Parts: sequence; C-alpha cells; structure tokens
Amino acid sequence: MKQKWKVGILAATGTVGQRFVQLLENHPWFEVAELAASDRSAGKPYLQACQWKISGHVPEYVRNMKVKDCAPNLECDLVFSGLPSSMAGEVETTFAKAGYAVLSNSKNHRMDEDVPLLVPEINPEHLALLEIQQKNQNYQSGGYIITNPNCSTMALVLALAPLEAAFGIEKVNVVTMQALSGAGYPGVASLDIIDNVIPYIADEEEKIETEPRKILGKLKDGKVVFADFKISAQCHRVNVLDGHLEAVSIALKRRPSQEQFLDALKTYRSLPQQLELPSAPRFPVVHVEGADRPQPRFDREMENGMATVVGRVRPCSLFDFKLDLLGHNTIRGAAGAAILNAELLVTQQLLKTRSY
Amino acid sequence: MKQKWKVGILAATGTVGQRFVQLLENHPWFEVAELAASDRSAGKPYLQACQWKISGHVPEYVRNMKVKDCAPNLECDLVFSGLPSSMAGEVETTFAKAGYAVLSNSKNHRMDEDVPLLVPEINPEHLALLEIQQKNQNYQSGGYIITNPNCSTMALVLALAPLEAAFGIEKVNVVTMQALSGAGYPGVASLDIIDNVIPYIADEEEKIETEPRKILGKLKDGKVVFADFKISAQCHRVNVLDGHLEAVSIALKRRPSQEQFLDALKTYRSLPQQLELPSAPRFPVVHVEGADRPQPRFDREMENGMATVVGRVRPCSLFDFKLDLLGHNTIRGAAGAAILNAELLVTQQLLKTRSY
Amino acid sequence: MKQKWKVGILAATGTVGQRFVQLLENHPWFEVAELAASDRSAGKPYLQACQWKISGHVPEYVRNMKVKDCAPNLECDLVFSGLPSSMAGEVETTFAKAGYAVLSNSKNHRMDEDVPLLVPEINPEHLALLEIQQKNQNYQSGGYIITNPNCSTMALVLALAPLEAAFGIEKVNVVTMQALSGAGYPGVASLDIIDNVIPYIADEEEKIETEPRKILGKLKDGKVVFADFKISAQCHRVNVLDGHLEAVSIALKRRPSQEQFLDALKTYRSLPQQLELPSAPRFPVVHVEGADRPQPRFDREMENGMATVVGRVRPCSLFDFKLDLLGHNTIRGAAGAAILNAELLVTQQLLKTRSY
Amino acid sequence: MKQKWKVGILAATGTVGQRFVQLLENHPWFEVAELAASDRSAGKPYLQACQWKISGHVPEYVRNMKVKDCAPNLECDLVFSGLPSSMAGEVETTFAKAGYAVLSNSKNHRMDEDVPLLVPEINPEHLALLEIQQKNQNYQSGGYIITNPNCSTMALVLALAPLEAAFGIEKVNVVTMQALSGAGYPGVASLDIIDNVIPYIADEEEKIETEPRKILGKLKDGKVVFADFKISAQCHRVNVLDGHLEAVSIALKRRPSQEQFLDALKTYRSLPQQLELPSAPRFPVVHVEGADRPQPRFDREMENGMATVVGRVRPCSLFDFKLDLLGHNTIRGAAGAAILNAELLVTQQLLKTRSY
Repeated sequence: MKQKWKVGILAATGTVGQRFVQLLENHPWFEVAELAASDRSAGKPYLQACQWKISGHVPEYVRNMKVKDCAPNLECDLVFSGLPSSMAGEVETTFAKAGYAVLSNSKNHRMDEDVPLLVPEINPEHLALLEIQQKNQNYQSGGYIITNPNCSTMALVLALAPLEAAFGIEKVNVVTMQALSGAGYPGVASLDIIDNVIPYIADEEEKIETEPRKILGKLKDGKVVFADFKISAQCHRVNVLDGHLEAVSIALKRRPSQEQFLDALKTYRSLPQQLELPSAPRFPVVHVEGADRPQPRFDREMENGMATVVGRVRPCSLFDFKLDLLGHNTIRGAAGAAILNAELLVTQQLLKTRSY
Repeated sequence: MKQKWKVGILAATGTVGQRFVQLLENHPWFEVAELAASDRSAGKPYLQACQWKISGHVPEYVRNMKVKDCAPNLECDLVFSGLPSSMAGEVETTFAKAGYAVLSNSKNHRMDEDVPLLVPEINPEHLALLEIQQKNQNYQSGGYIITNPNCSTMALVLALAPLEAAFGIEKVNVVTMQALSGAGYPGVASLDIIDNVIPYIADEEEKIETEPRKILGKLKDGKVVFADFKISAQCHRVNVLDGHLEAVSIALKRRPSQEQFLDALKTYRSLPQQLELPSAPRFPVVHVEGADRPQPRFDREMENGMATVVGRVRPCSLFDFKLDLLGHNTIRGAAGAAILNAELLVTQQLLKTRSY
Repeated sequence: MKQKWKVGILAATGTVGQRFVQLLENHPWFEVAELAASDRSAGKPYLQACQWKISGHVPEYVRNMKVKDCAPNLECDLVFSGLPSSMAGEVETTFAKAGYAVLSNSKNHRMDEDVPLLVPEINPEHLALLEIQQKNQNYQSGGYIITNPNCSTMALVLALAPLEAAFGIEKVNVVTMQALSGAGYPGVASLDIIDNVIPYIADEEEKIETEPRKILGKLKDGKVVFADFKISAQCHRVNVLDGHLEAVSIALKRRPSQEQFLDALKTYRSLPQQLELPSAPRFPVVHVEGADRPQPRFDREMENGMATVVGRVRPCSLFDFKLDLLGHNTIRGAAGAAILNAELLVTQQLLKTRSY
Repeated sequence: MKQKWKVGILAATGTVGQRFVQLLENHPWFEVAELAASDRSAGKPYLQACQWKISGHVPEYVRNMKVKDCAPNLECDLVFSGLPSSMAGEVETTFAKAGYAVLSNSKNHRMDEDVPLLVPEINPEHLALLEIQQKNQNYQSGGYIITNPNCSTMALVLALAPLEAAFGIEKVNVVTMQALSGAGYPGVASLDIIDNVIPYIADEEEKIETEPRKILGKLKDGKVVFADFKISAQCHRVNVLDGHLEAVSIALKRRPSQEQFLDALKTYRSLPQQLELPSAPRFPVVHVEGADRPQPRFDREMENGMATVVGRVRPCSLFDFKLDLLGHNTIRGAAGAAILNAELLVTQQLLKTRSY
C-alpha cells in the first residue's frame, strides 16, 4: 500500500464528525482530504467552524482545512458520514450515486435490504450485498453505502455474536443506561439530567430490538435472513459523558455452564483480529474481574474504546445468564465502527480510487 | 386519641434517622420523645451530634434534644430504628425484650419467620404473626419487631400487589438505577460516581429477589407461605440524590389488555387509604403520562414521596408488559414506611403504653 | 383589600415565567388572570405549552388556562415580564404605553434614567421616578416600567445595603459561581458542564459592576446619582441547579470591627419587613454559622429563597472583610423580586385598576 | 546516564501515590524499585493493595510488585512521598536521616527554614539550602527533604513568577474552585457535592497566602527572604474530578500594558525548559484563547498536565489585571511536581547512589 486512500468526512463539525477527525489522525491507510458540513460552516477553516467537544484538542492537521459543502464534488475516494438522520438518507444516496463508497453512521439506510449493516467481526459475508446494491440502485462504479449499527446495538451485538455461534440465542432482555454524548451537541440540557435519569430515548428501543437480528442474520440467495431470537429493550439516559452501560439477560438454545459461557466471550476472535486491521481491538469482548465492573468512567477506554467490556456474569433465575456490558458509544459505537468497516473494505479490495 | 404516643428514634443522627426526625415533625399521633444514637453522639444536643444531610433544615423541635444511648431505658412506647445492619439485629431484640414495639428499617429481622415484613396496603393480616412472635421470643408484653422492606423492594412491591391480585404474577425482571442516599452518609465517594454508573450494590439483588415473595405471601397456620413467582434483579448505583428508578418487565398468569393492566395500577386503593392513615398516599401507585417519565428529580416527591410512580407501560415481546417505576428511597423506601406501619398499629390497637 | 389585583405573566412558559406561576399560586393580593407567551405557545393550554422544569408540579390553577400572545389586550392590571432581552425592550414599552404596570425581570430598561431599578429594602424612594417616566414617555395613565436587578446583583446588593448605610463602601471584589437555571432552558448543555466549570457568562460582569451603584444611588433632582464605590466581578457557571454563590471581598470607608460588621448584616430590616409584605423575607440577610456554609443545595431555600445567605465572614489582608454569600437566582434573583416589587406598589397605592 | 536511578514511592496506594506510579511508567531516568504503604497494604501485591481511582488502568509493571512498609530499608536512592500530613512529618525525616533523598508532596516540612519549597522554573537556587539542611539535621550523606507546593499554590505561582520578575507583584486576590481529587479518596462524599459548592477547604487558604511568598523569595545568607506581596485567598470545592480553577486579580508595582502583561506570561521559559527535563512542560504558562476558557475538563491535560493554563486576561478596576487560571492538581499540583524536582536534582548532581 504505497499511498493512503483519500477520505472525506460528512458532518465533520458534529460530535461524530469530531471523533472521525480524531481517530483518523495518523491513520496508516487513510488520509483526511476533505471536511464537509452544513452551509453554516462551509467556507470556514475547521477550527473556526467547529465547537470541539470531545477530550483532547483539535488535531493540528485539520485546524486550517477549509470546510466544504456536503456535495459530491469532494476530492476523495470514500466518505465517512456522521450526518443526522434528517439529512443522511438523501445526501448519502447522492454520494453513492456519484461513485463514492459511503460509510454511514446514520440509521437511514441500515435496514435497506441491499445495504450491509456491517460488523467486521460478525458478518463480513454481508459485503456480498454491495454488488446487488449497485445493480439495484444504479450507483456509479465504486459507489455504495455501508452502515454500522446504532451505538447501543454495537456494544450488545459484539457480546451476542460468540454466544449465538456457540450456543444459539433464544431471548435477550436489555436495559440500557446511556451516555450523554450519544445525543450529540447541545443534546441533553444540563437542567434535565443533573440529579436525574431519563427513562426514554427516541427510537432507541426499536433499533436495539431489530438491528442485532439483521447483523447476526445469514445471507441466503442475496438476502439477509434475520436471526430468529427475540430482544426486548428499555433505554435510559444517565448522567455520564461517554460509555453506554447495558444490563443484559440472555436465554440460550443450548445452555452452557458459566465457565463455557465466559469462555465463549473471552476467547472470541474474528476476521479483523486475524487481518490485524489497524483499528481492530485485540479482543472484541473484554471480560473485567471485580464485583462492581464494568463502570463507564473507568472501563470505556479499554482496547481504545473498540471493544465491548463485560462483567458480573452470573446465572439468572428467569433467563440463563445475566451480566453488565459497556461500550464506548462514540468510538466503537460510531466513528470507530465506520473506520473499522472501511479497513475491512481495503483488505477485501472493495475500494476503488476515484478520479478527481 | 387524646394524647400522642411517645416515640424514640434509634440511630437518629443517621440519614434514615434524619428522615424520621423530619417526617415526625408535627405528626398528629406521634411525638418524638427520645433520640438515641451511638456512643459518639450520646450526651450531645441533636444539632451538634448530627450532620444534617437531607433537604430543608433541622426542625426546631429536635435541635436541643439531648441524644441518648441506644439502650432500652428510653421513655417512649415505640421505637423507630434506622440502625445499620451491623447493630440492628441485637439492639432491636433488646428493645423488643424490654417491651418496646420496634419498627425496624434494617434487614436483620425481615426474613425471621415470626416477624412481619409489613406493607399496610398489602399484608396487614401478617400482623397476626406478632402474637406468635411474642410467644416464641418471650418478649415482654407490648414488645415485638415489625420490619419494612428494603427501599428497592418497597417501590417494586407496591406496583406488584394490584397485579398479583388481579392477574397473578408469574415472572418479574427488574433492573434498578438507585440513588446515592440509599448508601447512607458518607456512602458513595464523589470520585466513584461522577460521570459514572456502578453496576453493583452489595446484597441488594438478593433482597429484591426474596422480600416481595414474603410480602405478597399468604398467612397459613401461623406462617407466611411465600408467593410463588420468580424475580431476577440487577442493581446499579447512579448519580442521583434521591429516588430509585426501576426498569421492570412482568409476565402474568392471566394476561390482561394494556388498559386492564393500567387500570389495575391506577385504581389500586387499600386499607391505609380507607383508614386515611396520616402518612398514607392517596394513591399507592401513581401513573404519570409522558413518554419520558417517571424521572427521579421531577417525580420523587409525588404523594409526599409515599407512592410508587409508574410510567412508560407498554407491551413486552419477552414478558407481558414492561414499564419504569420510581420510589423515594428514604421516604416510602425507609422512614416513611416505618411510620405508616406504626400508624396501622395504632388503628389496630396493637400499641401499648409503657410505664416510665 | 377586597379583591385581588389581576395580573398577567409575559413569557409565562419560560423558566422565570414558571417561577412566577409557582410563586403566585394562592398569593393573597394577586390573581393570575392571563398567561402570555410566544406565538408557538399561544392558543394552547398552559400544561401543553410549557415544559415544566422547576421542582414541584404545575399548579392546578394554570393547567388549563389558555396561553395568549404577548400583546396589550390582556385583561389584567399589571404584568410580570420574564421576557428574554431580545424581546423585552419593545414589548414591555408597548404594555406600559397601553397603561399596564410592567414589572420586568429583563435587563433592557434597567439602566434607563427614568426607570426604577427597585429593591424594596433599599431604594423605595426611587419610585418617585415613575411620575417622571410617565411624563417623559407619554405612557397612558397607570402605565410604567419597574425593573428588578440581575440575579447575581440581587444577592450581592442585599448584603451591601446595610454595609453602605453603616460604614460606607469603598471597593467590592466579587467572584461568582452561578447556577445553571440562570441560563434558562435548554440553556447550558450537559456536555459543557459535567466535570467542569465555565469561567464566563455573557454580559454578567458588566451588570454586577454597574447595577449595585444605581440601586444604592440617591435620588437628587429627579435623577439617580450612582453610589461611588467600585466593583470588580469575575463570573463562573458551575454544576449547580439553583443558587448563585459569590465570594466577596469588601473595603469600607469606616472600618468596623468584625462584630460590628456582622451585626450590621444580621440586624438589617427595612420597609418590606415593616410593611410585612407577603413575599418579604423576615430577614433580608441571613447569617449561617458553620465553617463551610453557605452551600447552594442546603441553604438556597432559606426564607423561601427571598434572602441573601451570608457566611464565612472573616478579615481580609487586601480588603477589610471577605465572605461568601448565596442567593436563590430564580426566586429572589428573578420572579420573587418582581413580585415583592409589586407588593410594594400595592402598599404605596401606585397600582391602578385598568378597565377591560 | 547508563543506569536508571532506583526510586521508591511512599503511600503508593493513595491517590497521589497512584499518580507517581502512572507518571513514572517508562520514565527515562527513574525506575520504580519499591512501593511502600501502610501496614494494611504491606505484603500484598500492588494490584490487590490498591483501589485504582485515576483514569487509565494499573500499569503492568507494578501489578505484581509487593508493597512494603514505609520504613527506611527500601532498596532505592530516592523516595517520592505522597504520605498524608498525619504521618509525613516523622516518616520523611526518618528516611532523610537514613540517607534517602526525600521528595515530599506533604505540607509538613514545606515551611521549614532549611527545606526548599522547590519549583524548578522559579527557585532552583533554593537548592543551596540542602547543604545547610544536612548540617542542621545531621542527616546521613545523601539524605535530605525537598518539598513541592500545595496544589492550588502550584498553579498560581507558575503564573506569578514571570509577573514578579517583569513588573513586581504588589497584591494578589485569588478565589479557587478546586477539584474533588484534591481531597483524596474517599474524600468528598457524593451527597455533599452533587448540585452544590462547598466554600471551604481546611488549611487551604493559609497555604495559598504563604507558600508563594517563600517560593518567590530570595536566598540571602542561607535563608529565604520571603517575597513582600500580599495574597488573599477564598477556597471552594466544586463538582469537578481534576483541575483547580482560580479567579485571580493582580496588582503590580510597575503597571504594564495588557500586551506586555500577556507577553510576560506567554514567553516565560526557565531552567527546566532549557535543560529539557523529561517532565518539563514546553511552556510553564499556556495562554488559551476563547472568551470562556480555561475550563477544567477541556484544558487540564495541556502540556500533559504540567503547565498552568491562563485565560480571560483583562483589566481590573480594583487591581491591575484579572484572569482565570487552571492547573492539574494531581499532576503538576502533586506527583508531577515532585518528579520534576527529582529531574532537576539529577542534572544538578545532587542525587547519590545508596548502597543496598
């Protein structure tokens, strides 16, 4: 790989966009060539257009880059999209039509029949949908859309995958305690969350109850046959900056011992680990000892925020096992997931250099 | 009722003790005659012995009362105990032996076969255990122990009671998000909870999984036959001052419509409401409208903190219904529960004036 | 006083408007007859138009009142204005022109030469400006504008007044730690303030450095001659819901002993106390003992939030004395101040019944 | 430097001790050879003895090191002490007597006449006190005590130093808003600080009013002549994890323009920068643009937490200039300061290899 792929970031000034900017600094395979955002920002240098809201400072390399419009004249080969769902549907399609590989963090196309809801550890074979998508949609050569899951789904599904493979999942109950950064900026008002919990996040439960079944589904005759287990979700916003915590109960088709259950989680490795993708966690699922772990503030940075951290695994009188799991919602739950997807594309030779 | 009953408060300087002091100010039936606490506090005026940590100020009436030892020479008819479990077992027994009615908030005697785990709305018939208890334990006339449930149990069981009565409960899954005041003072260190959730509270899950089955149990041949449903609990500490929020899923023996389910909760009234006990909530279960309610900071004061507040009732794909419920952990979940228990005792003529 | 005065609330759905609604429930002299807000709310019942964000629930009496436009056809005698400064200037003038007494919480008219910046304890004689104002502005009979100070100014000036009277103030240095409710709703984003302090509040320092000098000024020849001391302010937003804390250092013209200094604060009473105005604090300045007081959460409700709470008074090596003071920013610092102003108007027979 | 100096950490399991452990991982000049703590921890592996409470995980290198007693049989050349003041006085003396260089973070010896209160940027010449100290105290060769300032002092004095040098300081008023980590663990109870500010920190104001005058003092005839300016401090604890913010007002002997004032801060470099000490910040004082900076959460990591971050510099009507400054209280304000002191000792050839 002599030269880096040129990438653009759509909605580069938003909170997900800021993570893309941060995570792509010094990336071995990708070079941020274009930053795009709304009209309000277009034309300004990034430092001026952006209210930086994540830890650490604005990387040097973007400070003076000029922000452009989100229009398909960006000089790059692929785009990472952190667009809000109000815009993502249309804009991402426009980019795919124009021949860009679009790696989307938005919900709009996730459930489209010909769009992979990709998790490289779990369903790389879903990439076969791309050929179908390009035919269906009449996208220009090289143009397609790949999505990554919702942040809460992401943390959950990494833990479900090895269990599904080893024992078959029957039922999953999940109660989330989600971080504020998941709501973007300005997002949740301080007057709403201090000394409080909000037991509702719009559309979130529907996503968690559906997306894992597509992700863990099998490709048959060019279509994803959804996995057949049931999920019930209850979502809460808590006074935490980053890191979604989920209290999960799981019933399995073939009940393992607790040791076997834990072993399936701890020994889980998959394609991104074998390929040693630059952003891949060494362990997609990390098990933490300690009766009171995982905790968002202390465990969210594990594996650079790219793993699901699991703890408190114990038998359940209603399901088979219960546990708490934690994922970094703006890293593996958003920007990091899209970047890992793009890294997989590189190794599968599914990226194409555009001419510009 | 010409004269008020004289009451004492054990562990009066602790956080539960402070609630007793606050809630008993101007009580129509009870007069705080004695404050007792550890050796460290004994002999000092209350204002000096106590680090007041609940909202509002130290009531005038206790400021200059002298704190005594927790020994059974207090000049009162009944005692409210906010003793920590490390001391409650023995001290409460000592008081019962000496002929005091003991209303205990501690876990020590809750599961004793002859001790009522009393919730006046639910199991007033369990008071029949008192006679047995006095015989078994050889307590002096008038002496006995009555307990109220753990704070998380309390909020849950008020909502379960009308459902058990109407439809029969089969299974309950509960994930708690509990307030800091539940841990007492100093309790949880600020460095542990800011920007964080702690997925563990010692012994809490065991209590929630057991206590409701005793509370909802039936008295047969002088013994409580536990209710036969199963509960699975996962407990979390969140960055909230007061108010335990619980995400609950419930399977019923006879599945009602959502309207019937809600109706059972909303129309629930019981003995304390009929007797118009001074501390009784008008509605033991309050239903709040609004997609994002109940919320601890905004709803915990409903019915003066004596009710369980329920919201987000909706069908569940794994159980029958799921919902969020909220209870004020230091009012109905602790001091307020014990006071309501004592009020029931008055109306049942189970209190006896001691001579002193 | 046979009948209550009919009052309207401008911007009744905002955070200050909500406090007006709450504090005017069961007011002995005033009856809320009209609620007005922006076009977006107009026509809706209050409960639906308003996102209630203060503690306690929406009072019964307003739930079904229909919200109207902020136009001078409201059927009431006076209006309380919680309008944002972007609108207050013009709208308040329109109401005054139409013959309404306007009690404004906004900054727009505070420094107008003929508008009283009224604190009933301090400068009731400034009400003489009203006659001049009506002539200058050609307002319809009964129409005028009276303002109350900025929230931080309010807490400070109540403590300065008795010191100015007794010893003469020379210099004041004040560093504020201000609550989130001061920024309205949605106001400060949670992502900005958790685990953080923001050392800046737009225009706040200018207000604190100027307003006290007008409030403590003397009326001469129909004009307020500003008090001649200097104030320097540094303002910060902290992670607190209600209650502005201020670290203050004061140099005096005639240096008293610490006892004399404290005595001036503690014995301070003034006209509202003598008149026993319904909202007047018994003590405008309350002194709290305790090395670590006042604290916002524990002390902001003193005197129903209508007093300034002072503590930690001690000598200063640069000024004469230093101390911390606390005021409830949305009660005495906003709605409560305007209501107390209106109560003073009633007793001074400066209100006039409008015909409608 | 062929071999690393062997260092020990006293109170290695405390919060300051944890920072020493973290900051000394991979240090180019020092190797942690010994961990010492209280009896309770002695004999256990570090991972088991320590409740890790700072961000990031326990470094590999210490996990299995056995914790020893705080007694002078540690096999190392110098010790970093994070001992609490209740123990530091005596224990540190014992180590110095036994020939260890002691780098202390505790208050006990800071004001001793023959002990340097060292800030390498400011007063390296105070190291001449060591020879006097050794004579006075009869310490074994190589043994002495060097202290670093209190955390709030540290942040302040780095900004004062260039101003004193350029313009002469006359008066300093400082109001602090200090982080929770400054109180150690468990430290401040969550029930005390949520939705609150505590306007008091024991002994803190005295330290800030005194220590800078020793640090900026001149050595004359073997004694430090304190700088002659006055400081007045008011200290507050706020709901922030790390980072002390200070609102400072400064009067100077020779009043500069605002540009000159800022320039003095921004161009400040000193000995640690010239020597390129491994832990030295490139800039001891960093100036941040932005009307609302510095902010603890966003700016505390600047220069790896080793600099004072200054912002909002503006004229003051009472003093000459006012500003806000921020320092990382457990890095430059504690462990990092002691390590930088030790690095200076290396370059000044003031360390001696002990035989063990």
